[in-house]
Amino acid sequence: MSEPERWIELGQQLRVDSVRAAAVTKSGHPTSSMSAADLMAVLIDKYLRYDFDDAENPANDHLIFSKGHASPLLYSIYKAVGAIDDEELLTFRKLGSRLEGHPTPVIPWVDVATGSLGQGLPIAVGVALAGKRLDRIPYRVWALCGDSEMAEGSMWEAFEHASYGKLDNLIAIIDVNRLGQRGETMHGWDLDSYTRRAEACGCHAIAIDGHDVEAIDNAYAEALEVEGRPTVIVAKTLKGKGVKAVEDKDGAHGKALDDPEAAIEELGGLRDLKVDVSKPERAEPHVFPTGALELPSYDLGEEVATRKAYGDALTAVGAADGRVVALDGEVSNSTHADIFAAAHPERFFEMFIAEQQLVAAAVGMQVRGWKPFASSFAAFFTRAYDFIRMAAVSRATIAISGSHAGVSIGEDGPSQMALEDLAMMRAVGGSTVLYPCDANQTAKLVAAMAEREGISYLRTTRGATPVLYEADEQFPIGGSRVVRASDEDDVTIVAAGITVHEALSAAQTLAEEGISARVVDCYSVKPIDTAGLAAAAEATGAILTVEDHWPEGGLGEAVLAALTGLDERPRVEILAVGGMPGSGKPAELLAAAGIDAAHIADAARKLVRAAALR
Amino acid sequence: MSEPERWIELGQQLRVDSVRAAAVTKSGHPTSSMSAADLMAVLIDKYLRYDFDDAENPANDHLIFSKGHASPLLYSIYKAVGAIDDEELLTFRKLGSRLEGHPTPVIPWVDVATGSLGQGLPIAVGVALAGKRLDRIPYRVWALCGDSEMAEGSMWEAFEHASYGKLDNLIAIIDVNRLGQRGETMHGWDLDSYTRRAEACGCHAIAIDGHDVEAIDNAYAEALEVEGRPTVIVAKTLKGKGVKAVEDKDGAHGKALDDPEAAIEELGGLRDLKVDVSKPERAEPHVFPTGALELPSYDLGEEVATRKAYGDALTAVGAADGRVVALDGEVSNSTHADIFAAAHPERFFEMFIAEQQLVAAAVGMQVRGWKPFASSFAAFFTRAYDFIRMAAVSRATIAISGSHAGVSIGEDGPSQMALEDLAMMRAVGGSTVLYPCDANQTAKLVAAMAEREGISYLRTTRGATPVLYEADEQFPIGGSRVVRASDEDDVTIVAAGITVHEALSAAQTLAEEGISARVVDCYSVKPIDTAGLAAAAEATGAILTVEDHWPEGGLGEAVLAALTGLDERPRVEILAVGGMPGSGKPAELLAAAGIDAAHIADAARKLVRAAALR
Repeated sequence: MSEPERWIELGQQLRVDSVRAAAVTKSGHPTSSMSAADLMAVLIDKYLRYDFDDAENPANDHLIFSKGHASPLLYSIYKAVGAIDDEELLTFRKLGSRLEGHPTPVIPWVDVATGSLGQGLPIAVGVALAGKRLDRIPYRVWALCGDSEMAEGSMWEAFEHASYGKLDNLIAIIDVNRLGQRGETMHGWDLDSYTRRAEACGCHAIAIDGHDVEAIDNAYAEALEVEGRPTVIVAKTLKGKGVKAVEDKDGAHGKALDDPEAAIEELGGLRDLKVDVSKPERAEPHVFPTGALELPSYDLGEEVATRKAYGDALTAVGAADGRVVALDGEVSNSTHADIFAAAHPERFFEMFIAEQQLVAAAVGMQVRGWKPFASSFAAFFTRAYDFIRMAAVSRATIAISGSHAGVSIGEDGPSQMALEDLAMMRAVGGSTVLYPCDANQTAKLVAAMAEREGISYLRTTRGATPVLYEADEQFPIGGSRVVRASDEDDVTIVAAGITVHEALSAAQTLAEEGISARVVDCYSVKPIDTAGLAAAAEATGAILTVEDHWPEGGLGEAVLAALTGLDERPRVEILAVGGMPGSGKPAELLAAAGIDAAHIADAARKLVRAAALR
Repeated sequence: MSEPERWIELGQQLRVDSVRAAAVTKSGHPTSSMSAADLMAVLIDKYLRYDFDDAENPANDHLIFSKGHASPLLYSIYKAVGAIDDEELLTFRKLGSRLEGHPTPVIPWVDVATGSLGQGLPIAVGVALAGKRLDRIPYRVWALCGDSEMAEGSMWEAFEHASYGKLDNLIAIIDVNRLGQRGETMHGWDLDSYTRRAEACGCHAIAIDGHDVEAIDNAYAEALEVEGRPTVIVAKTLKGKGVKAVEDKDGAHGKALDDPEAAIEELGGLRDLKVDVSKPERAEPHVFPTGALELPSYDLGEEVATRKAYGDALTAVGAADGRVVALDGEVSNSTHADIFAAAHPERFFEMFIAEQQLVAAAVGMQVRGWKPFASSFAAFFTRAYDFIRMAAVSRATIAISGSHAGVSIGEDGPSQMALEDLAMMRAVGGSTVLYPCDANQTAKLVAAMAEREGISYLRTTRGATPVLYEADEQFPIGGSRVVRASDEDDVTIVAAGITVHEALSAAQTLAEEGISARVVDCYSVKPIDTAGLAAAAEATGAILTVEDHWPEGGLGEAVLAALTGLDERPRVEILAVGGMPGSGKPAELLAAAGIDAAHIADAARKLVRAAALR
């Protein structure tokens, strides 16, 4: 067989296997697979360089299905290259199969989970950035994109960054099959609308017939010659190509074919072509020189913002671990990622005001074993929540630092105040949520984050706060710290971050009135120190929690959930931000929100009085 | 004075007042205000049509500061037009002042809160869509954008939709002052990079010198002549223009000027020009004909998906209230907004797969008094969380319907499963969170949402579930429903949505073993029925909550928080999704997640046994 003949046959095989896979549970996206089958046939037979026996080979290309719903096609590729057998292909979407409805890295050759559209390409940008600037080896990143997902702004963030980063190792393939889930896309088959936008963003664009295997071949060959910018291949295709019952038909999205047997026959029947995918040449990733870990230390009583300590500590951690990289969303002089950038410029990535691309790039870099720390204002990570959620599905390990949390930021007002970030980040699968109150604690937690698997989040404070802890103290994740206690405490105040300082001030006031308040610094919000909180509850009975956050899903509810197992359940009262804040001085806003020392003292008094009455 | 002379003077006045405002609390963004002062001077003096004595006038133009940090400029405009006096200007950023750090609709002439960059323009698209397709009156929408925020993909979603919607009533003005917070933007003063992208998206683009008042005048005049597409004016400006100490200087972002007196002198001193803004011609918004409210009804035991009932009910509500409009993110055949679209095509908006623009358009439409219902898969509203958060700061009233919640969706896998939406939506200021379990209940809640202020959220289920309630039953927001009870209940199971059905099945099993379980349908997750839950706790002691959601921030924690006030705090156990789900049948996945009837029965048995031992 000639190459083109072989590609045509292989394309048909991928279609047949996609139809068969979707027939198993009568679910999935065969038609969205069939449109891209020819594009993938040529790619895997001639261009992809990947060692399927060694998924960890650093020189492997990366193939990311941004249109994750075309998973039947991806799994059919895995069969064609001999990575899985036909029996496994037919476990598609069954309980316990690694061939899930949308790809996840439970499969060794899948880099990241996709299926929330508009994410695969921005993540591919992260992998390609790693290739250029970190690994410094010439693997290529191929991203198969749907045309519907081009409506996501995140795709255009990706084009911008791919162009800005001169990522000629990135090739995006847009499968323009015209049809979305419920009808035609915004641009239908107007290929120009895509090439025009891609070129405007500085990409090299090539429009082709996505079922003409020779045109596909030429496009890939052309893409490999392009230097200094990414290539976007815009391919006109037919959804459901090859089966008249569904080809270019509305209403055939996301459904198994009604008559798979007839479809298979129409496609020319079963085939068993095997593709011997080219293996990459060996290459060793670049290693950044490192030294010993020397975390910054701060003197007791010194006034230091935890965001500043984040920057100092990350810089130290970066000096000790060359895999640590930092990314920031154009606010590095606020988050203090700028300290890292100055010390380790090769490992710092300015992502501008594009928080989706910021998190996506971090996810892409960790695919290659780098340890990304992504920072912005905590409030603005709400912009990337879908990416963070999906990073958990990707089993990704990334660290996120959100600065300027809560009303304590002051004059800037509610648009800049994170008041939902604890709730948001706690509700991420397997996440870690940390909220330090002083600089030495921050340093220890940043170091711990660099060794922590999964999604870890650090909440930092804008204003300078006094150092409470000696530099040699330890703050294990999952722990808490009793910062003030006596044997006769009447109440426990559980605080974190900025409210620890307010709680200490309240405890001082209460002491002068003869009320003894224990103060617990609950710096590890998730996992939370269940045993420590239980001990405090047992010792003092009533618990008052206080947080610079909405009442829902934050510290207070985390404490409540931690104490459900106790036989004697203490009274718990939650102080949190009750109404929409405005502008003002930090102290004024803490007072207006009802979470300053005076309000804490008030609530504690009432709790103690109520306990005395019972 | 000639017009140009007057505009130059007015521009200087706006600069002087911006400097003065920021000097009050030594905070704010005078330099980002100074770059756009000339652009705004010409606009308010010649082009804007706005009745400052009647902010509710439907014919008023809309001026949205997408670059909300330029609030000193906006407030200086309000002074120049006589809407506020100098005394009020100098309350900028003080506690209690309506002139907050970033604009919010606490001010009557502000449509929406901005300050999270990349939101004002997409919201302006929503207002302009309302003007074209709903109000049908020729107000114009002017959006002042920063160049830094052009890095947000949401801005390109906005250009796409503005062009697709032929919004020639929208004029975006990009203030290209070159400098972001911590240095140069991605494109610096490369005006072509912006015009090229805008044109590629189908917009009319005009590049000008943003300090040349005659060029500005010509650009606005040209924009008014454009038909069938939006205009984007790309203006080259100097950040801090007019004051040498900060003009085009790095490091001068977001800071009051060191020497405001000298700056004011350099700018030519105080001025007191008054602008008599043109009033719009009277115009009455279009009114859609309506009839009586006839909610759909379903028979007991009938199997109906709550998402289907959403579509039916919304269609009925739309027939009864012409202000109700629906928007969907290219999944209307899944969310069942398609039923509304078929019945009320003029009031349906296809927003394609652009969830940020979806929510932003809803926010824009409610500016004009429309009642938007935005729908997508619940998981994909995570994409728009920053917009939802900011909608609360905007005091916006929008309804959101998220379908396909939880593991019960089945084979599609975790990328499509909302497992964090309850936490996310509860942690929105003043939000309402509803989660119906049957079709009749859904209908009543949809009707209630149409009358509810603020951000309300409805979580719907993919699969068909049996109708439990008669069509004439009432389900007030803030209520709950005891669906099974006796005088001798041993335990209460609190469920919502899909888990109500599992809980009823578990209760049946338990009854056969002699354990009597009360089942509470907690359909109103926020506000939650504190009294109802307290009554159940008093009656049965132990409470078991069960939800198709991560354990954090969802139903279980909401119940815990509701019960903190009780003197006798019941044991509460939370059943929730414990680990990352995969694909499988709905029943298999509910079992694997530990939240099906069998797991509920098991947990209830243990609770009852533990209570008996004490």
